[in-house]
Amino acid sequence: MEIKIMKNILDRNQNKADEVRGLLASKEVLMVNIISSPGAGKTTLLERTCEELGTKFRMGVIEGDVTTDRDAQRLKKFNIPIVVINTEGGCHLDSHSISKVIDSFDLEDLDILFVENVGNLICPSQFDLGETFKLAVVSTAEGDDKPAKYPMLFREAKAVLLNKIDLIPYTNFNYAGFRADLANINPHVPLFELSCTRGDGMNEWFEWISGQVLKPKRP
Amino acid sequence: MEIKIMKNILDRNQNKADEVRGLLASKEVLMVNIISSPGAGKTTLLERTCEELGTKFRMGVIEGDVTTDRDAQRLKKFNIPIVVINTEGGCHLDSHSISKVIDSFDLEDLDILFVENVGNLICPSQFDLGETFKLAVVSTAEGDDKPAKYPMLFREAKAVLLNKIDLIPYTNFNYAGFRADLANINPHVPLFELSCTRGDGMNEWFEWISGQVLKPKRP
Repeated sequence: MEIKIMKNILDRNQNKADEVRGLLASKEVLMVNIISSPGAGKTTLLERTCEELGTKFRMGVIEGDVTTDRDAQRLKKFNIPIVVINTEGGCHLDSHSISKVIDSFDLEDLDILFVENVGNLICPSQFDLGETFKLAVVSTAEGDDKPAKYPMLFREAKAVLLNKIDLIPYTNFNYAGFRADLANINPHVPLFELSCTRGDGMNEWFEWISGQVLKPKRP
Repeated sequence: MEIKIMKNILDRNQNKADEVRGLLASKEVLMVNIISSPGAGKTTLLERTCEELGTKFRMGVIEGDVTTDRDAQRLKKFNIPIVVINTEGGCHLDSHSISKVIDSFDLEDLDILFVENVGNLICPSQFDLGETFKLAVVSTAEGDDKPAKYPMLFREAKAVLLNKIDLIPYTNFNYAGFRADLANINPHVPLFELSCTRGDGMNEWFEWISGQVLKPKRP
């Protein structure tokens, strides 16, 4: 019986996600659903991306947080449209919450809509938001065993960002083990090795995400 | 209606948790429900604790994991009773899963039962397992904003372990900010500053957890 209830919830979520996806496709807006553990560096990634690509693309952000608007406050300086969704204890965003706020954005005037999901490696990977794709962010400080232990997200993700590579010298992170586990789960997924604070690998990320944009280049 | 279903699930969870708690109390077993983000150091904490206190106390472990028995494999060398619960995608343990495995332990012959919950800062804090208390573990690499952003666990926890303090020099962790946020949420909670890999602060932790044991000292 519990499985049935869960199936209903997922069905209703899927219908609404399909609606959101259709709307975004019609407006040629790229929506990226960013998922990670707490503190892997999602907000810092968005800060660096807004800094670098802010003049090239029109970006917006949906900030999913259990409580507070701290992440949104960090992005305020970029003067882009930001909507905060506080889940009040909820462990993930769903397509209904996205659908409710999507009209606050002028989709004609938007190239990329980033969704910073609630910090959680498990539940967010099970809910389609209507995104173009999911992006997995994982920090080296979390250890090399995350793909093996939390395979759902790494299987679903269109790209994996391994962040905080500047901390590798101070941890026992086994890079070969990480790569091997990831290759088992999602053999051809692009892997970017980054330090969002120090700058390593950021150009490769900027280039790749720029290549995903759907709207034709502005003249 | 969804709230009602959730309430039923929580009610049923609470009844079973009370049963587990009654059983453990009658056997004077301390059960510690360890909760953290993925990769904050729960398993390393258990490794160090088994090494140090293994001759003083009789310990057992319930390992909650989405999939794999990797954490249990790391603890096998201590030759203590370990039961793995794979949630197969589930984001937390509940009291029913604990109740099903509790009989595999000889509770007469056990001082401490550690439960390593699924790596997740949100959902596990909402489910009473029948534990004596919850323990929050957070790594400095996750950033100083975790108590403010995920207050449920930090409000519930009987103690907070700030792990990986050896990484502070390589991060922008703001210790004063962390302490201030935690003091707002849970003013008198004991805070242990640790490096489970380097050893800092471990003696304070060993002493505190030893003081929590319920069974009278063996002669």
